[in-house]
Amino acid sequence: MPIVRVEIAKGVATAEQKRAVIRRMTEVLVEELGRDPEFVFVLIDEVDTDNWGRKGRSLTELWAKTDE
Amino acid sequence: MPIVRVEIAKGVATAEQKRAVIRRMTEVLVEELGRDPEFVFVLIDEVDTDNWGRKGRSLTELWAKTDE
Amino acid sequence: MPIVRVEIAKGVATAEQKRAVIRRMTEVLVEELGRDPEFVFVLIDEVDTDNWGRKGRSLTELWAKTDE
Amino acid sequence: MPIVRVEIAKGVATAEQKRAVIRRMTEVLVEELGRDPEFVFVLIDEVDTDNWGRKGRSLTELWAKTDE
Amino acid sequence: MPIVRVEIAKGVATAEQKRAVIRRMTEVLVEELGRDPEFVFVLIDEVDTDNWGRKGRSLTELWAKTDE
Amino acid sequence: MPIVRVEIAKGVATAEQKRAVIRRMTEVLVEELGRDPEFVFVLIDEVDTDNWGRKGRSLTELWAKTDE
Repeated sequence: MPIVRVEIAKGVATAEQKRAVIRRMTEVLVEELGRDPEFVFVLIDEVDTDNWGRKGRSLTELWAKTDE
Repeated sequence: MPIVRVEIAKGVATAEQKRAVIRRMTEVLVEELGRDPEFVFVLIDEVDTDNWGRKGRSLTELWAKTDE
Repeated sequence: MPIVRVEIAKGVATAEQKRAVIRRMTEVLVEELGRDPEFVFVLIDEVDTDNWGRKGRSLTELWAKTDE
Repeated sequence: MPIVRVEIAKGVATAEQKRAVIRRMTEVLVEELGRDPEFVFVLIDEVDTDNWGRKGRSLTELWAKTDE
Repeated sequence: MPIVRVEIAKGVATAEQKRAVIRRMTEVLVEELGRDPEFVFVLIDEVDTDNWGRKGRSLTELWAKTDE
Repeated sequence: MPIVRVEIAKGVATAEQKRAVIRRMTEVLVEELGRDPEFVFVLIDEVDTDNWGRKGRSLTELWAKTDE
């Protein structure tokens, strides 16, 4: 009955890519832990780059200069 | 000083229903655990159905066919 | 398909009380939002009082003086 | 490699204030725990006041009367 | 820079299985979203079966009867 | 009424250091956002190094070789 949460920056994944993440993360738990897929949940949280910081700066600032 | 978080799919609750959830979840913790309601917090997170998967598919896909 | 998480301080609830919280939180979502109980999940997280702070002090310190 | 999450009510912080929170929270973990800032993450979650309850009422209702 | 959290019931995964979950969840984000593995984090939270409820009962109770 | 959660690897902070983190994280929210300290909560979650992965390996494995 696992629950998976994935936090990614807003804008890095299309709807198609999010579907692939949901499908494959579920497979990992079915194949590696023998879980019933009926009860495997995957939630994706897309975080605004103003609201995600690394080394003291927001991703908005960091990504203005480099590509992560 | 409990904190409750409720994740529901976006669109399944009206503002009125969310108020009822907040009120009753608080009552549960006051009545069952003797907590001071002043310090009982309830946060509701409404998750886009594209971003919530079960058995490897998004709720958007699953709910297009059935009613959960 | 809601997921409820309840954070409480470690030691404030017995096994019996936790069962009551699980049962009643589930009822709230069934009765107020019409959710199917088969897919209502409640997770309880018991946090050490050294690891929970309010107004800049840990609950261990705060509760040494008063009863919250 | 710490991860910090900050939940605040939507509307209480400007972009400028959020940048200050990210910068200073990172400093706390670098200075107090000796963590490498390269791997200190801060995520801010701005919660709608309809979706945040205290003492059984939403912040929308509570703040209509008083100032927290 | 994604963060993945996996909640599973305590006891369903060995150390070996948890390593496989970490490795494969990381691969999913690298392959599907093009993320840099250096900044892909996976956290596993093993929840006591007394503290995880479904349909109003704890997993401890549910699993005493059936196999999920 | 902010809630702060800090996830750190188990073993990187003493009780004394955790108290400092709680105190200073609270100060950040009081000073930068003007929040009332009475309602600033800080929760620290200490994650086992077997349960925290980066670049597809657990911290237990990564730290056996280098210092993060």
